[in-house]
Amino acid sequence: MDFKLKHDSRESCYRKPFGAVPKGKKVYISITSNKLLEVYLHLQYFNYDEKYAKMNVETKENETYLYYYNIDLSQNYTGLINYFFRIKLNDDSYIYYGNNSDGLGGEGQVYYNNPVTYQITVYEPFKVPEWFKEGIVYQIFVDRFRNGNGKIINTKNNSFIYGSWQDEPMYVKDTNGKIARWDFFGGNLKGIIEKLDYIKSLGTTAIYLNPIFKSKSNHKYDAGDYKSIDEMYGNEEIFNELCKEANKLGIKIILDGVFNHTGDDSIYFNKYGNYNSTGAYQSKDSPYYKWYTFQEYPDKYDSWWGIDNMPSINEMESSYIDFIIEGKDSVLKKWMDLGVSGWRLDVADELPDDFIEKIKTKIKRIKEDSILIGEVWEDASNKISYSNRRKYVFGRELDSITNYPFRNAVIGFLNGNVDSKMFERMIISLYENYPKEIFYSNLNIIGTHDTERILTVLSNKQNDQIQFLKMAVTIQMTMPGVPLIYYGDEAGVSGGKDPLNRKTYPWGNENKIILKFYKYITGLRNKYDALKNGSIRFYDMGKDVLCYERTFKQERILIVINRNSSKSFDIKLDKISDTRILPLEIKILCR
Amino acid sequence: MDFKLKHDSRESCYRKPFGAVPKGKKVYISITSNKLLEVYLHLQYFNYDEKYAKMNVETKENETYLYYYNIDLSQNYTGLINYFFRIKLNDDSYIYYGNNSDGLGGEGQVYYNNPVTYQITVYEPFKVPEWFKEGIVYQIFVDRFRNGNGKIINTKNNSFIYGSWQDEPMYVKDTNGKIARWDFFGGNLKGIIEKLDYIKSLGTTAIYLNPIFKSKSNHKYDAGDYKSIDEMYGNEEIFNELCKEANKLGIKIILDGVFNHTGDDSIYFNKYGNYNSTGAYQSKDSPYYKWYTFQEYPDKYDSWWGIDNMPSINEMESSYIDFIIEGKDSVLKKWMDLGVSGWRLDVADELPDDFIEKIKTKIKRIKEDSILIGEVWEDASNKISYSNRRKYVFGRELDSITNYPFRNAVIGFLNGNVDSKMFERMIISLYENYPKEIFYSNLNIIGTHDTERILTVLSNKQNDQIQFLKMAVTIQMTMPGVPLIYYGDEAGVSGGKDPLNRKTYPWGNENKIILKFYKYITGLRNKYDALKNGSIRFYDMGKDVLCYERTFKQERILIVINRNSSKSFDIKLDKISDTRILPLEIKILCR
Repeated sequence: MDFKLKHDSRESCYRKPFGAVPKGKKVYISITSNKLLEVYLHLQYFNYDEKYAKMNVETKENETYLYYYNIDLSQNYTGLINYFFRIKLNDDSYIYYGNNSDGLGGEGQVYYNNPVTYQITVYEPFKVPEWFKEGIVYQIFVDRFRNGNGKIINTKNNSFIYGSWQDEPMYVKDTNGKIARWDFFGGNLKGIIEKLDYIKSLGTTAIYLNPIFKSKSNHKYDAGDYKSIDEMYGNEEIFNELCKEANKLGIKIILDGVFNHTGDDSIYFNKYGNYNSTGAYQSKDSPYYKWYTFQEYPDKYDSWWGIDNMPSINEMESSYIDFIIEGKDSVLKKWMDLGVSGWRLDVADELPDDFIEKIKTKIKRIKEDSILIGEVWEDASNKISYSNRRKYVFGRELDSITNYPFRNAVIGFLNGNVDSKMFERMIISLYENYPKEIFYSNLNIIGTHDTERILTVLSNKQNDQIQFLKMAVTIQMTMPGVPLIYYGDEAGVSGGKDPLNRKTYPWGNENKIILKFYKYITGLRNKYDALKNGSIRFYDMGKDVLCYERTFKQERILIVINRNSSKSFDIKLDKISDTRILPLEIKILCR
Repeated sequence: MDFKLKHDSRESCYRKPFGAVPKGKKVYISITSNKLLEVYLHLQYFNYDEKYAKMNVETKENETYLYYYNIDLSQNYTGLINYFFRIKLNDDSYIYYGNNSDGLGGEGQVYYNNPVTYQITVYEPFKVPEWFKEGIVYQIFVDRFRNGNGKIINTKNNSFIYGSWQDEPMYVKDTNGKIARWDFFGGNLKGIIEKLDYIKSLGTTAIYLNPIFKSKSNHKYDAGDYKSIDEMYGNEEIFNELCKEANKLGIKIILDGVFNHTGDDSIYFNKYGNYNSTGAYQSKDSPYYKWYTFQEYPDKYDSWWGIDNMPSINEMESSYIDFIIEGKDSVLKKWMDLGVSGWRLDVADELPDDFIEKIKTKIKRIKEDSILIGEVWEDASNKISYSNRRKYVFGRELDSITNYPFRNAVIGFLNGNVDSKMFERMIISLYENYPKEIFYSNLNIIGTHDTERILTVLSNKQNDQIQFLKMAVTIQMTMPGVPLIYYGDEAGVSGGKDPLNRKTYPWGNENKIILKFYKYITGLRNKYDALKNGSIRFYDMGKDVLCYERTFKQERILIVINRNSSKSFDIKLDKISDTRILPLEIKILCR
């Protein structure tokens, strides 16, 4: 090939504006070549339509020919536009120019066939409420956080209570590997109320609670009654008190909405007859019969991941929509009236787009500044689940997404699997693909109830483990997106995968060094608009050093992280456009 | 064979006196034949000596020749004498006459070789205290009987508490099948104190407690500290109070002495360093090092049934004997001073005879009317364990034995596997082999913490289950021996093998019919000397009908049990030597 092509989705001379664009906004795209060629821009629309157009040629410099093409997105369209370039060679054959092979955007590459496409996300403009976007979330797995009763009350039949708060959690299984009994420590809502001042001291502005509705398990992702607080956790009055007391401290409450399935032991399915209702399992005349899908009545039915104690819901069944969303005393309405300010949608991938959209519409109608988070484990802008392209980020669905790609980038960098350049690309790819509103509202996690705890992930660091933990938290607290603190991470709690990631909060045995650092770093986060709302720019300081700047109005903050335990680096500030770096205090965190 | 031989160990014309004999007492033995023969009596002594002697001939009737032989047991000997007869035939060959093939005594049979022997038990006379011999024992598995604290206190690290008192017990095992966590309901000594009046209302005069010393498990057969009450069960003061309050009601306390092994998690072995001591596992300089046998120090050691959390004890190690038995503040002394009146020796088969003898000697010295029960699952008079013939019943060891053969006979009869004749033979065999003092003191069980519950054993009876339970209890309460009520049996608790036989006592949900019957039948037991001390005689009323008479002085009680659900029988009272049968009330229990 005797010529050189270039497109870089992140440089304004090749694509403008940067990243996702609101519906109707024009996007200019260009590609350059040092030889006169015939170039076509290929567009693939969300609805699978395809278009292509020959690009206009314009000579920009003496010996370089620049071809550029403008596309007009002012049509009535939201969704993704994927694009690549087709170049006609002299022999009438074609080559292609597309995204780099990892699909992360930026400068692309030539393909001889099947080019990886670039992505433009086109969305309907929306606003995420500031309380969330500028906040810090504290996640609580209720059974493990705090028992506010002194003793354990309202225990369940056929369950186990741990002998001591310090015990290591375990699953009690039968010989077939199925849960034989559920295990509880006895944490509850009163315990959270008791510790609101503590939670506030961490700089948090919202509490996300793992599910709290009545159910058999300790995780409560198997709802038994969407309209009752589990009796071990408390009751409506206590929940209302929690919301009120939290609000007084400027803390909002976010609930976990588990709408893809119920428990088999529920009002609705009632497999064991434990509820005073006619469940779908019991009779085809049950008002809930249509909620479920039976292959063979009553014992064969669709269930979440084939786990038969979590029968799947037909979310689009009108009586279910009415019950959860639309009805005048719907589940959403009930709990929001009692003080809830947001919902996290469990397994969003399993929920139909229309269902999520209805939820969003409803909760905003009930409370204008409420928010909706979706549990998605990948880049949600181009997520395909069950062969369907998802509409999560186009404006009518989610305000925020569980940012597991962020966690992968942080851990990858700190554990040496991802260098600083790749880290940047992983983050900027999200920046590019998400509407800015979502990128700044994404739930930036370094650990949840579904992952190993961050301290354990870093346990290979041995003596430097806490130092690396500080780096992880520093990155989390200085990046765009809403940081989430998984209860106990701030106190030095360790733990591998489920159930070890659900150990109790170590009241009285907190790791003071870690706790102090958390309070310090969340304090900085809350103090500086640059950290909450500032733009982000990375500087290349070598593969071991992560260096980025957050800027907002007059505030500029430079964050420098050196993951190399045995080597220090001189940061050349002349690389940085303006060396007035404030505040310097963050720099002391880095080697 | 042209002649007929007969010997019947239970007929006074063939053997006199009946059954076991005190040392020095002469026993007369004869065999009859209708033909003149040369007959030898063969004797096998406990020390494996053998003797034989030609029997004297005496003609008793016209056409019948009776050969008889008297042996003199006035030598200084205790133990078993086994015997059979050798008969010389005309052709100088021999045949033998011995016990019947099941070895249960009574009329024997001819053998051409290897005759089954008869048994005479020779013992040193001893007395079992009346309070025990004439009493009724209530067995309590402490964790499952009653929580006297309202809530659960002093729980153990890494253990589970059942969510509700009604839960079904289960073992929490890891994937290797080993116990992962111990499970507790929270019963304790205070609970027993609270229910002493109830226990008394059952007519009981003693409580046998499963182990109560500090240990990791819920069964406590893995002692951690022989000198402390487990903190979940209470403490010394509470234990002392239990003894005092029980004594006020005429109830004595019997403890479970588990001296064959300790827990690995104990003061003495201290495998996990949980105790503030130098355990045998930790150092060869441990004062307890000699208590255990290590094949490979410290990880390979002898243990009970190879279960490595129960390392075996060298009971004859002098420091152990001193610690448990002889020392001035020995384990036996400590607890007897605090109010204990007797001990049940766990796995007596694993304890050396000398060790048991030392215990008996010591406890009688501490408290003259104390008692010693041995856990033996078969006829203890001729028990061989680890190739050793055991001396349990010869006067220096046990006062009482866990009478599992009795249980087998009762269940066998009620379930149709044993007819009334066989039932009689099983019982009379024990009567014959045990010193009378032991036979009347044997712990007659129909269920314990180691067996299925009696109600469950009878569950094949369907609608007649309770009726059959009543029959079982009636037999138990009207036979020689000390009846044991396994807590909850009297309230209709069911349950299969361990752990289902250790369900909680159903306070408030007792089966009233069963409970009422228990109180009634124990009332009769306690009212009539004939039932406690009377002689026993069986009458043959057909295979489905158990009919026996208890007689003491002027009291005569006839017990008739018909196991046939579909047929009633006329009892021919003319078979019974004297038809003045009192009281008639028991008869109404039988079909």
